[in-house]
Amino acid sequence: MDLEALGTCKAFAGLTEDELDSIVAVADRLEVPEGGEIFAEGSEGESLYVILGGAVELRRSGQVVAELGPGDFFGEMSLFNRYIRVAGAVATAEARLLGFRRQRLQPLILRHQPAAVKVVQRLGAMTVERLQRVGESLSAHVADEDPALAGALDEYRQLKQRLVAGWALAYHSIGKPGKLEIASTKPSATAADLSVAYSPGVAEPSLAIRDDVDAAYTYTGKGQLVGVVSNGTAVLGLGSIGAAAAKPVMEGKAVLFKRFADIDAFDLEIDETDPGRFVDIVVALAPTFGGINLEDIRAPECFDIEAECQRRLDIPVMHDDQHGTAIIAGAALRNALELVGKDIGEVRVAFAGAGAAGFATAKFLLVLGVAREHLVLSDADGVVYAGRGDCNYLEELAADTGARTLADAVDGADVFIGVSAGGVLRPAMLRSMAPDPIVFALANPTPEIDPALARETRPDVVMATGRSDHPNQVNNVLAFPYIFRGALDVRTREINREMKLAACEAIAALAREPVTAEAGYDGVGLAFGRRYLIPKPFDRRLLPAVAGAVAEAALRSGVARVGLHLGEYREGLRRLAHL
Amino acid sequence: MDLEALGTCKAFAGLTEDELDSIVAVADRLEVPEGGEIFAEGSEGESLYVILGGAVELRRSGQVVAELGPGDFFGEMSLFNRYIRVAGAVATAEARLLGFRRQRLQPLILRHQPAAVKVVQRLGAMTVERLQRVGESLSAHVADEDPALAGALDEYRQLKQRLVAGWALAYHSIGKPGKLEIASTKPSATAADLSVAYSPGVAEPSLAIRDDVDAAYTYTGKGQLVGVVSNGTAVLGLGSIGAAAAKPVMEGKAVLFKRFADIDAFDLEIDETDPGRFVDIVVALAPTFGGINLEDIRAPECFDIEAECQRRLDIPVMHDDQHGTAIIAGAALRNALELVGKDIGEVRVAFAGAGAAGFATAKFLLVLGVAREHLVLSDADGVVYAGRGDCNYLEELAADTGARTLADAVDGADVFIGVSAGGVLRPAMLRSMAPDPIVFALANPTPEIDPALARETRPDVVMATGRSDHPNQVNNVLAFPYIFRGALDVRTREINREMKLAACEAIAALAREPVTAEAGYDGVGLAFGRRYLIPKPFDRRLLPAVAGAVAEAALRSGVARVGLHLGEYREGLRRLAHL
Repeated sequence: MDLEALGTCKAFAGLTEDELDSIVAVADRLEVPEGGEIFAEGSEGESLYVILGGAVELRRSGQVVAELGPGDFFGEMSLFNRYIRVAGAVATAEARLLGFRRQRLQPLILRHQPAAVKVVQRLGAMTVERLQRVGESLSAHVADEDPALAGALDEYRQLKQRLVAGWALAYHSIGKPGKLEIASTKPSATAADLSVAYSPGVAEPSLAIRDDVDAAYTYTGKGQLVGVVSNGTAVLGLGSIGAAAAKPVMEGKAVLFKRFADIDAFDLEIDETDPGRFVDIVVALAPTFGGINLEDIRAPECFDIEAECQRRLDIPVMHDDQHGTAIIAGAALRNALELVGKDIGEVRVAFAGAGAAGFATAKFLLVLGVAREHLVLSDADGVVYAGRGDCNYLEELAADTGARTLADAVDGADVFIGVSAGGVLRPAMLRSMAPDPIVFALANPTPEIDPALARETRPDVVMATGRSDHPNQVNNVLAFPYIFRGALDVRTREINREMKLAACEAIAALAREPVTAEAGYDGVGLAFGRRYLIPKPFDRRLLPAVAGAVAEAALRSGVARVGLHLGEYREGLRRLAHL
Repeated sequence: MDLEALGTCKAFAGLTEDELDSIVAVADRLEVPEGGEIFAEGSEGESLYVILGGAVELRRSGQVVAELGPGDFFGEMSLFNRYIRVAGAVATAEARLLGFRRQRLQPLILRHQPAAVKVVQRLGAMTVERLQRVGESLSAHVADEDPALAGALDEYRQLKQRLVAGWALAYHSIGKPGKLEIASTKPSATAADLSVAYSPGVAEPSLAIRDDVDAAYTYTGKGQLVGVVSNGTAVLGLGSIGAAAAKPVMEGKAVLFKRFADIDAFDLEIDETDPGRFVDIVVALAPTFGGINLEDIRAPECFDIEAECQRRLDIPVMHDDQHGTAIIAGAALRNALELVGKDIGEVRVAFAGAGAAGFATAKFLLVLGVAREHLVLSDADGVVYAGRGDCNYLEELAADTGARTLADAVDGADVFIGVSAGGVLRPAMLRSMAPDPIVFALANPTPEIDPALARETRPDVVMATGRSDHPNQVNNVLAFPYIFRGALDVRTREINREMKLAACEAIAALAREPVTAEAGYDGVGLAFGRRYLIPKPFDRRLLPAVAGAVAEAALRSGVARVGLHLGEYREGLRRLAHL
């Protein structure tokens, strides 16, 4: 059978001949006559098909949805989860196919068979991309007020969620389990190499560090190394699922540190919920690291944990759930206010949600210039008002107000910031807001108000969410890799207010620049406006802009321990971003 | 100037044209007429030279020690430390040279200039190899009773130590500081990739682990990950130098785990000397790891720390300073006894040193069959005898004996095991030992008795040391990577006695096999005997043999939590060792 078409198939491209052979060995070879059905709409899917020759049509409810030829593949959705075919497949010219059954691929994957791992990784990514494109197209149609599509959108979202879930599990388990590995950066092949990497030569750097503890930055990875530390008490939106269950998330955070700022981050899941003992552990671990990223630790403990770790350590410590959100939301708000022509000192801001992210964002907005008396927090019990008797961190921001419900707080407000739960901002509340209302509905996966509904309710709304499938995603990855990059590079003692402000300003300023080829992603042409308030995560200009600004602020505010030439530093980061 | 010769020079081979250009840019170009001196014997060295054309002789005290031509280099010792030239260099035909001054290379290295880093890394490794070869040749001559060379050997050793020290510091600091980095094992280039590596897809594996904690082995790196954990209280032979100063050693240990068993190991330096609190920290960290290698923790705390960590955790915990030494020394002793035809149940064993390694080795020898009444420990205060009033762990092995000094203990003994300090075994003591005395002088860098002196004193001695430049190096790297490999692969709850015994027996058995091409290093032809009691570290047969034996022992003794087909497993390890 002619396998040339396989090489032209994107999922198999670039595999060696041996790899192709090994994977073809588990495929079924099919010849389907013209007009023959390959599978029916509504049947249960269990195979992916690659077309070697002939032609195939995918049909849904009698309508042709795709015409495929040699090198194309179809049916890939069935590889990652139980799946009912949403379209049927029919050969429109005698077709030669390779069929890959899920049950036959699985054993190869479990044995880490390289070709199977590569093919499945590509199919997974391509599946997510296809789903994403379909979703965007459906969303656009719904936004264009084609209500007939609303049902399709819902159906599609459920399908997407199920398939992404299946692929997410496969992504983590295929090949080497998990997402990280440790690699040697120095030659270690020969006895001569190992005699300096380990005993006896390694005694020299150890003695140098004994005599001057800062020599650890010269002779070990400390200065490039961030500990991503969690106790699993507030993981994503999943709650207190425990240290072990937090590991995939923390490994993922380490992947982001590497991907966006070439920082080596190692995840540590600490089975300790007592804040005092947790702090003791983090402090004891500090000789290992150049910085500590606290992650997914519940409020209110997270506030004291961060403050106490930073007080006792001379390396930067940041609880990203607090400050990452605060900085990005702050940047988005600055730009939104510029667009609608309002002064930050004048606007009224209502928060839904007063946990780690909400509280920290509220405090950061005060730093940015929001007036104390214009800011009202609310949580599940309603408005956080003076005299409610919270007896905790919330008292610091308790409002002197007669407002008692979120609806009271939102009435007439210029800005709504939600870090709470899906759907809490009702259309009636949005209608009560001031002209050009700014709505940051950051709850994930379901925003406080659906963006389409918000635009329908108030065409003048300026909107941001936490989701990647809507414009203006408030995503911490715009900040934390670069904040730590800058902090590590000037060896700062902490991440102070000046550094956070500098990061916020740099992010906001970048969004006001046109997206040029320098940005290095397909966003060229995007320009500052209601649908582009903050940069996109893959913008390569973020690294030099944000890390450069953070390093500069650290130098100016006196918390840096090593100097550098800022122009050369930014140029080096620019090159790094293009690697 | 013709740079072709540069490409033929081993230190520059394989560099790209751009890389060569960048490094040549900082070189001095020299033309030296026939008979011209390049540098004088006894002058201070500051440059490495590469010969592009012509010929050069190195002369020491008027004698030619090397004749060099195009592509050769010389003077490289000056790159790593202050260095007085031990030979002069003269052009014997008009010579064209490139000279690389230390001061001009340094800035390139500090800027991580890739070509400079590569060249210096190669020169460093080649320097260590040259020094090693000279040392072996000198040692062989001294061993052949050429006393005139003894002075040269001493002088050479001092030089070697100084140069290796300089190179060791450079090795750690050039390029990226330290020895480890964290890499992503899964695709992370695109938004689709990151949407499963991190939020929202990552919630799936987290939920799976929340519901079944063992799913962490499927969806995270836990099962491949060993924590190398120290508090820096007994680092190498340097004493309690602190957690930060231990980092180069722990990073080095991680390099060895990766190099020999493809295990991802991450170093953690914990600033906590209180044993109870240290244990609490290690236990809290356990969700991160599949196993814990305790390292360089002082006695007696190390005993309780290991026992308590293992009692509270269901992942394997091993303090390598104890058991690594015990297992390798045990293997060497088994084989030595076979060679001299003595029964382990009959031999008398005297120990010098009763710290972590000594005590653990003594206990392991009891397991191997040494009779309790035949074993005498001694430390700096003399023999550990019943009634000495140690009031600590030593009482367990206190001897019921009239011996009070090391000399008393050694008198008539069959076996001496030293894990103490250089030179404590005097020739007179060695003379008092039984026929075919077995002497393991494991103190580093200076053994309890010099091997040459020992052979001179007792030609019938069977000798092992801790040094790589003598036969029979008792080196923990023969055991720990493979013990953890086996333990992780069957997901054992602990590293029990059966697994340690299996490792010991597998190591001993491998040394009794001829060294074949399968071993994959230049030891082919080595055969079991007095100069080859235990395998060499680079023997590729160790991984399948030792890890396979350990996994099998874990399965048989009921501490494994997953099964595997041992034949396929060993075959997979054999392939892994050849990658």
